[in-house]
Amino acid sequence: MKTMYIGLLGCGNIGSGVAKLLGEMAGTIRESYQIEPVIKSILVRDLTKQRPEYVDPSLLTVDKDKVLRDPEIKYVVECLGGEHPSADWMCEALRAGKHVVTANKMALALHWRELHEASEAGHATLYYEAAVGGAMPIIKILHDSLQANRIDRLTAIINGTTNYLLTRMTDEGLDYQDVLKDAQALGLAEPDPTADVEGEDAMYKLSILASLAFHRHLPVSAIEREGMTHVAQEDIRNAHELGYRIKLLAHATHTEEGMDAYVSPMLVPENHPLSSVKGAFNAVFLHGHACGDMMIYGRGAGSAPTAGAMMSDLINVILETANDHASQVQARENDGCVPMISDRTSAFYIRLSAQDATGVLAHVAASLSSHQIGVKALLQPVERALEGAQITILTHPASEKNVRAAIDAFDKRLVKVMNVLRVEAGEL
Amino acid sequence: MKTMYIGLLGCGNIGSGVAKLLGEMAGTIRESYQIEPVIKSILVRDLTKQRPEYVDPSLLTVDKDKVLRDPEIKYVVECLGGEHPSADWMCEALRAGKHVVTANKMALALHWRELHEASEAGHATLYYEAAVGGAMPIIKILHDSLQANRIDRLTAIINGTTNYLLTRMTDEGLDYQDVLKDAQALGLAEPDPTADVEGEDAMYKLSILASLAFHRHLPVSAIEREGMTHVAQEDIRNAHELGYRIKLLAHATHTEEGMDAYVSPMLVPENHPLSSVKGAFNAVFLHGHACGDMMIYGRGAGSAPTAGAMMSDLINVILETANDHASQVQARENDGCVPMISDRTSAFYIRLSAQDATGVLAHVAASLSSHQIGVKALLQPVERALEGAQITILTHPASEKNVRAAIDAFDKRLVKVMNVLRVEAGEL
Repeated sequence: MKTMYIGLLGCGNIGSGVAKLLGEMAGTIRESYQIEPVIKSILVRDLTKQRPEYVDPSLLTVDKDKVLRDPEIKYVVECLGGEHPSADWMCEALRAGKHVVTANKMALALHWRELHEASEAGHATLYYEAAVGGAMPIIKILHDSLQANRIDRLTAIINGTTNYLLTRMTDEGLDYQDVLKDAQALGLAEPDPTADVEGEDAMYKLSILASLAFHRHLPVSAIEREGMTHVAQEDIRNAHELGYRIKLLAHATHTEEGMDAYVSPMLVPENHPLSSVKGAFNAVFLHGHACGDMMIYGRGAGSAPTAGAMMSDLINVILETANDHASQVQARENDGCVPMISDRTSAFYIRLSAQDATGVLAHVAASLSSHQIGVKALLQPVERALEGAQITILTHPASEKNVRAAIDAFDKRLVKVMNVLRVEAGEL
Repeated sequence: MKTMYIGLLGCGNIGSGVAKLLGEMAGTIRESYQIEPVIKSILVRDLTKQRPEYVDPSLLTVDKDKVLRDPEIKYVVECLGGEHPSADWMCEALRAGKHVVTANKMALALHWRELHEASEAGHATLYYEAAVGGAMPIIKILHDSLQANRIDRLTAIINGTTNYLLTRMTDEGLDYQDVLKDAQALGLAEPDPTADVEGEDAMYKLSILASLAFHRHLPVSAIEREGMTHVAQEDIRNAHELGYRIKLLAHATHTEEGMDAYVSPMLVPENHPLSSVKGAFNAVFLHGHACGDMMIYGRGAGSAPTAGAMMSDLINVILETANDHASQVQARENDGCVPMISDRTSAFYIRLSAQDATGVLAHVAASLSSHQIGVKALLQPVERALEGAQITILTHPASEKNVRAAIDAFDKRLVKVMNVLRVEAGEL
């Protein structure tokens, strides 16, 4: 029986959840692996704060060095969240040869290289299954199951809040503001929902996923980002009429020419597996040269899924390092500068409002055609657009630059652009 | 740099695929892990047969002991398929301390205990990612990512052929026999399709999945099995009208009372993620106490996905055993006798043909009601059933025994039972 000492940074919802689960599972771990996992120190800000009964008060400390500089502590579980000081402390732990388990997507995405360099310098591994997709083991799948694959594309629903909002807007015909208020009351959206609805949370997660899947660092700054607050009921209804659902997607591709990545609301064909991802669920859809199309679907957040994923990481890192053999994780990081693709091809959904009764459609059609954009479908409530009438156009795949240029060239006296959304290719 | 010697049993499609992929990846493996993987012997039946150019003819042998008894060979990749002699040879290799990688679902399902006992006796691990779900890393997810979960339910589409047949029957309105002929011509169904369409293949895979997920052996003999050949166009159309799709599902539950497992065609709600699994794709939907609902979706078969999954196993087993530390896989097997549940609850789809013009519905309704079965929906083409008219009933969840008894009690002069199918619960 080997005793393995663990230090916790933070003891909020997640930290105490990890302490609880570790207590529950200690017996199984002892029995299955002949390893005794013991929490030695827990860093907190306030020693006087009331803690759950399964947190041993004698372990609490306000001195970070009791975790980061204790030579007996080989494993550090970071449960602080946020960029600072988490990133620095994780780097310090790694450089000191301590293996780190974290769910901190922001610190990871913004300090990817430093963390990996610290991991290499300290011969210590960094585990972060819980940072993306909660209960879904997508990080482990990318690391340990798809090694024989070149992954060239991933499309994901990785923000539960926005998927919940869009699902209710779709299923109940409600407006964004009404659903948001409801979600806030239920605790499913933050009082300030910006990080979710503007796609920042999805952007951090996409940076992590793509960096791992493509073996090339995709910095947050290279990700184009568009939120979902401008998606209106009209768009959802039009999309449905055309056979689509609107989802906030995180999308990245990697080809010989380079990488391309964005977070944006998109039309997804109703028969696409991503279309059936409802409520707060998450899913990652990817394509590899050997595995073909693959999707993993599951709960994206919540304290039980998150603590469960961190426990799984902790068990795995203990097993893998109990005999000090070479780390698998750091070995696979393979960085390098990759050009970003400057134009992309996508089908587009364009919703217009006719400002004048005559010649609207002819004008729009001529502008699209002169920019080499084909029209796949068109919704127009009456045969000739009346003033104020809505016209919805679904294009064939086209150069995004051309689409933007064609839209810019619309005569604003004739037509007002209400919304423009990308369309996910549906060929499976 | 450590040299690791590998022996192959069999060199057909899969065996030569593994040899090819290993050749392609040897450089990466050397670089990433400082390990040199070398194929030392390949067992074949016929030395004179033409082989692809990436198979080194000097490695071929017809003497199985060149693989099974060579002390230098630490890893055996079994690519023979079928029950015999694969199962015996894998047991022999494991007992001799050789780690085994296989895709052989039949040998695994039928010899689960012997294989695990041999693994324990020889302190060798058995890897079988490719045996279920081709490219989907479901085995590894169950082993290494969901350790902190008690899994109580799994529902899977794990036979690509039948899902392909049912998808085309649904999307194109074709009959079973016509689609089957087409699939056979395309090589997507065997000349003798029995193993697929009668659910045998799904049964082997379910035995493996459930044994792993529940940490209790589910023998093949305990799985109730019903094929899909009796699913008619009428059933598919009726299901669609009621908001469902028909899929051949493998289903297993594990509660404190015991286990329950069956393979059968079922109605799946159209908004359920399993409903969007089309063509030859596979998916495993499961529920764990910490992770909640989760699904993995991907290609279920094909030589590239299969060889890719086997390569991933081989890399993992080499990494895990390069330093001879305790095997993770065998340690987690936790067998024991679990009672099988003798009755189950499910909603049912019942299609009837009226044999007489009068009193049909009243009779059927009375029989169902006297067996405590509620009717959720009813399809009847005209207000009163004419002779030969079809009546479709969707029940509320009820005891399966009661449903069978109610159906047995129908007056055969009034009504003929055309089909009875289970309905997958849709609450997500």
